[in-house]
Amino acid sequence: MFIDPIIMQMDESIDRERFVIATYYCGAKPTTNMMKFAAALAVEQTTGTWIQVPGETPEVRERCIGRLVGVYETPAYQIGVPSEAEERHFIVRIAYPWANFGAQFAMMLSTVIGNISSSGKVKLLDLSFPPSFLAQFKGPKFGVQGIRKLLGVWDRPLLNNMIKPCTGLNPEETAKLAYEAAVGGVDIIKDDELVADAPHCPLVPRVKAVMEAVRRADEVKGEKTLYAFNITDRVDRLRDNAMRALDAGANCLMVNYFTIGLDAARMLAEDPDINVPILAHSDFTGAVYESPWSGMSAMLIGAKLPRLAGLDMVIALSPYGKFPIMMDTFLNAGYHMLMPMGGIKPIFPMPGGGTTQGHVEDLYKKFGKDVMIAAGGAIHGHPMGPAAGARAFRQAIDAVVAGGTLAEAAKEHAELKAALDLWGIYSESSGGLFDLKG
Amino acid sequence: MFIDPIIMQMDESIDRERFVIATYYCGAKPTTNMMKFAAALAVEQTTGTWIQVPGETPEVRERCIGRLVGVYETPAYQIGVPSEAEERHFIVRIAYPWANFGAQFAMMLSTVIGNISSSGKVKLLDLSFPPSFLAQFKGPKFGVQGIRKLLGVWDRPLLNNMIKPCTGLNPEETAKLAYEAAVGGVDIIKDDELVADAPHCPLVPRVKAVMEAVRRADEVKGEKTLYAFNITDRVDRLRDNAMRALDAGANCLMVNYFTIGLDAARMLAEDPDINVPILAHSDFTGAVYESPWSGMSAMLIGAKLPRLAGLDMVIALSPYGKFPIMMDTFLNAGYHMLMPMGGIKPIFPMPGGGTTQGHVEDLYKKFGKDVMIAAGGAIHGHPMGPAAGARAFRQAIDAVVAGGTLAEAAKEHAELKAALDLWGIYSESSGGLFDLKG
Repeated sequence: MFIDPIIMQMDESIDRERFVIATYYCGAKPTTNMMKFAAALAVEQTTGTWIQVPGETPEVRERCIGRLVGVYETPAYQIGVPSEAEERHFIVRIAYPWANFGAQFAMMLSTVIGNISSSGKVKLLDLSFPPSFLAQFKGPKFGVQGIRKLLGVWDRPLLNNMIKPCTGLNPEETAKLAYEAAVGGVDIIKDDELVADAPHCPLVPRVKAVMEAVRRADEVKGEKTLYAFNITDRVDRLRDNAMRALDAGANCLMVNYFTIGLDAARMLAEDPDINVPILAHSDFTGAVYESPWSGMSAMLIGAKLPRLAGLDMVIALSPYGKFPIMMDTFLNAGYHMLMPMGGIKPIFPMPGGGTTQGHVEDLYKKFGKDVMIAAGGAIHGHPMGPAAGARAFRQAIDAVVAGGTLAEAAKEHAELKAALDLWGIYSESSGGLFDLKG
Repeated sequence: MFIDPIIMQMDESIDRERFVIATYYCGAKPTTNMMKFAAALAVEQTTGTWIQVPGETPEVRERCIGRLVGVYETPAYQIGVPSEAEERHFIVRIAYPWANFGAQFAMMLSTVIGNISSSGKVKLLDLSFPPSFLAQFKGPKFGVQGIRKLLGVWDRPLLNNMIKPCTGLNPEETAKLAYEAAVGGVDIIKDDELVADAPHCPLVPRVKAVMEAVRRADEVKGEKTLYAFNITDRVDRLRDNAMRALDAGANCLMVNYFTIGLDAARMLAEDPDINVPILAHSDFTGAVYESPWSGMSAMLIGAKLPRLAGLDMVIALSPYGKFPIMMDTFLNAGYHMLMPMGGIKPIFPMPGGGTTQGHVEDLYKKFGKDVMIAAGGAIHGHPMGPAAGARAFRQAIDAVVAGGTLAEAAKEHAELKAALDLWGIYSESSGGLFDLKG
């Protein structure tokens, strides 16, 4: 077989409903025949083994084999011979019949980046799902609009706070900090990802103490606060943890979605008995996205897949603070939480990891109102206390939504001024995404 | 507008029937925000100008604006900040509503790589067409199967010969060389691309002289020969040239498709009065594909678009001879002539530009039987004369189709031996595309 018309297809020739299309980066030596390598990937991840076997009938091939639908080199050299030393870079697109793995994450990931995650420089950048596949997923119960409805807040970015210090607090200490953050104007508070059901801060007592504090705060501020309780655990305990938290009064849950697994996260999100939003923490995802040559893209593991799993808001590490992530990487993940995705609701991106009041203007330029600003240290470390730290964020948010600047607003608000004096105002030369010619 | 959900879409969210998807290479400085740049391309090539204008209503935007459906960096760095000197490389995919330009080449190319062909490092690598768009094109009248039927040859690669020297021959001299090539076993002879209707070799006398010679050769060899007469000219003369050639007895036509333009080529191919195959010469296409940073890919301008225009066989410059093209580039173009493409028939790739008898084994490994070997000098420059040069090719073809090697066949055939002694046997370490693990 030379040009196998089953394997080598043009994008437009396949029945899109039958296929999930995977987009890969592949790095290669100058002498690599990339079409051959890419076709081998398509075969390896579907019907193939290292030799043709009797069971691989034409019917099996037609039904199951991966199709190579695109090979693009960057830069797009077409003449000349690359030098010995030069590395070549490719984007490869392979279409997999999704009947091979069904509408689940475990078998899908085994197919699209299973064995070939060890095939050298191969990184999965994107998965494109047909409507028939997306229809098998319920998606988030709440998402952007559902969370806004719960909170009664429609016209501004939301404010999230993670309790700091990360670990070591007992339920009462946690509740005390939660009260401060809530009363200062935080919309959604969350456990740290390092807190779940530890002996010194068990889940049910924490839920009871925190929810009581939040109720008091809500009465004082006249707004509603959600608190996302981290129920991350062994998979056989997840549902029980969720139910115990809900029975104790929790109005929001949280999972470390990649350490429990995407299918486990989906199981919770699609559970009809769990009727509160689920906040997703992205810790451990760096283990698959930080390599430029292997693993998966931050956009895919950090946005598209958790959204498909049904999580309502996801932490997106930002380049503003302590993580060396690129602005592009951050925006690509954040935007993929908000873009149209068939019937799957948009969810809140939560820029975190060193976010301060001085980043609010830039975040608003980049996301508008549909963003949930995730701040830890800038609230709990504010020189005037956590409530003042939260108020400073709300002052910043109100100023930029009204069309003002942080610098102007700081003249009127002592809390904001203190934060900006301490941590500065972030600005970059480029403006928002859609002042295109500006 | 921040994250414009009309412009920024996931691949799976657009109605594929409405869009042609363009895939670009983009090179950028480290500080470039590629999503912003890519969104600007999508807007620039559809509704956009440098400022929002009153006519750009929401309805106009929904109907007409380009959608950004993919931005992928290679290598896929996601953390760190590239150094000042470093260049970043991207693949960008933009979906254009094809109602904007209709089922034609001129307005489509103006849209997908018009003004933005001057936007720095932007190269169009691929266009993906939905079935509704492809259905507007008739495609090739003959293609692979139609040409095989005309010739009565089903089971082997075809042999093409271009008359050499390129220019300077009169009709009688052309006919003499055509006779030699035909009688030696060439299936399709073609004019050189530098010959059309020059005063020293006018079209109609050439057709008459050549067709008479071909008829004689066919009687001798007991096979049929096609001769592709080059009718390239001012667009207002093309149809007239075609009719004059057909009236004079031509059984095949030829155009330099990129110098006459793809729409002009299509006009001829879809003309109900032109019932012979049309051979496409790809000269001048290098002007748009040789730059790694700009223009269009060799695959697109050299295979996918001429096939869509309805041309039945296309010259593909090979890496075997005098052109510095990469093997990858050559194969990608050749395979795109043969892959499934909706209802558009497969067409013959014609590897040319220095092809000798010594390349036949490798070509058969890479293409199997559906390839038309295009040879000029190795036929007309054969030490035993053109008929012997053609016989040497047929000996080589028969040997490899029977599972033999060129080296073995040369022991039995003096013509093949002479050619191989002079020009050698080509081999590369890698085998055919689908002995994947070999």
